[in-house]
Amino acid sequence: MSGGSLVIVGLGPGNPEQLTPQARHALARATDLVGYAPYVKRVEAGPEVVRHISDNREEISRARHALEMALSGRHVAVVSGGDAGVFGMASAVFEAVENGPAIWRTLPIQVIPGVSAVLAAAARLGAPLGGDFCVISLSDNLKPWPVVLERLRLAAQAGFVIALYNPRSHARPWQLGAAFEHLRQSMGGDEPVAFARAIGRPDEAVRLSTIAQANADWADMSTLVLIGCPATRLVSRPNGQEPWLYTARKVEAAH
Amino acid sequence: MSGGSLVIVGLGPGNPEQLTPQARHALARATDLVGYAPYVKRVEAGPEVVRHISDNREEISRARHALEMALSGRHVAVVSGGDAGVFGMASAVFEAVENGPAIWRTLPIQVIPGVSAVLAAAARLGAPLGGDFCVISLSDNLKPWPVVLERLRLAAQAGFVIALYNPRSHARPWQLGAAFEHLRQSMGGDEPVAFARAIGRPDEAVRLSTIAQANADWADMSTLVLIGCPATRLVSRPNGQEPWLYTARKVEAAH
Repeated sequence: MSGGSLVIVGLGPGNPEQLTPQARHALARATDLVGYAPYVKRVEAGPEVVRHISDNREEISRARHALEMALSGRHVAVVSGGDAGVFGMASAVFEAVENGPAIWRTLPIQVIPGVSAVLAAAARLGAPLGGDFCVISLSDNLKPWPVVLERLRLAAQAGFVIALYNPRSHARPWQLGAAFEHLRQSMGGDEPVAFARAIGRPDEAVRLSTIAQANADWADMSTLVLIGCPATRLVSRPNGQEPWLYTARKVEAAH
Repeated sequence: MSGGSLVIVGLGPGNPEQLTPQARHALARATDLVGYAPYVKRVEAGPEVVRHISDNREEISRARHALEMALSGRHVAVVSGGDAGVFGMASAVFEAVENGPAIWRTLPIQVIPGVSAVLAAAARLGAPLGGDFCVISLSDNLKPWPVVLERLRLAAQAGFVIALYNPRSHARPWQLGAAFEHLRQSMGGDEPVAFARAIGRPDEAVRLSTIAQANADWADMSTLVLIGCPATRLVSRPNGQEPWLYTARKVEAAH
């Protein structure tokens, strides 16, 4: 009934070279792995380690299960892709703790950061996060769609580079197109937009466009969409190489 | 005159356990290390590796020097703390390329992502980035101060969790206090504020407060300041342990 622990581990974008030693060591101590199937399956572990696979969108019940196992003395690792604190499992675990039995608050719970999808995508493209930026989940499962739209409008007004997580899925096919349409009303049109798919994995793909031209069909569940600000630029390269995308550090006075 | 390369490497927050194998391997191939002294000194390398140390705020001349060396056939690693794309050297390198001789565009330039300071701080605190968030540099060296204030106001209006880089230095002693004062005008007052100093390093320190009570004197050059949104909460723990800080995933309808 004691001595257990819970660690929430960000696995990085998928390239094993982007998994930190701290995360690797934390996983090596686990007796139980908990998470969405693609992430649990990604972890190398011996046959004595128990894998608890759950569907997507079952975050709270998954978190409660992990906490119960930790309380029973197991060393539980809850895994997420990228960084567990960025639209991953970390928030769900603390939400479960806040609303669960008081004894859960006595557990040693640690979060191990990882290279998030937005950082991996940005590095792959150049330096699009060179200025102030924001990170928005386009999913309206947990927040009303009008809030998403208002956040997009304010982010564009602020001149933030905008990183969109969860841009599109089978259950949410129209939101990204609506987001582009909404942003076109307040942006100039030439701001670069990057579709960075499965960065760090074998099926990695990049597509560059502008907010005027961006087509939501170019994104899927594995895509991170980056929308530039007025200071975001392409640097062309010779021989048909993909241009670099970066955001200049200097910001002019507000207009 | 050929065969050189340039890699821009994020070293992570400082804990060697948070340096990815990809970054470590990229550093091991370098003939030359370029950067601000504390970062260059952090890299383990043999005596044959040349260390080029420059002062802070000399990013563009440092970038040009690195590009010239790469063009001459050296394998140059430009290093930054955290992630090089988040207020690090990556943007300065591409800015130098854009404004430099065309031949620089033929160089192989790669950015290696790292665990950024904001991700490390968030993991140390719990899960404060559980919702949409933004990352703002409080430095007005490269953008007008009114732009900073306007971005803070819009970010608070959007309900973003706000991560502040470069909150305070000897040369910029008053900006953080002014930022808190500005935010108090539009926030409720109870929103948690965390001062996360030197996370992952031996002199790590954390202080929790609220936007109403936050005191700029608690920050220095090594501090990441995280300002919560209405969904950010503390989860108390027994026996005098520091509470966990997290942002609930669910967002209510706009008021």
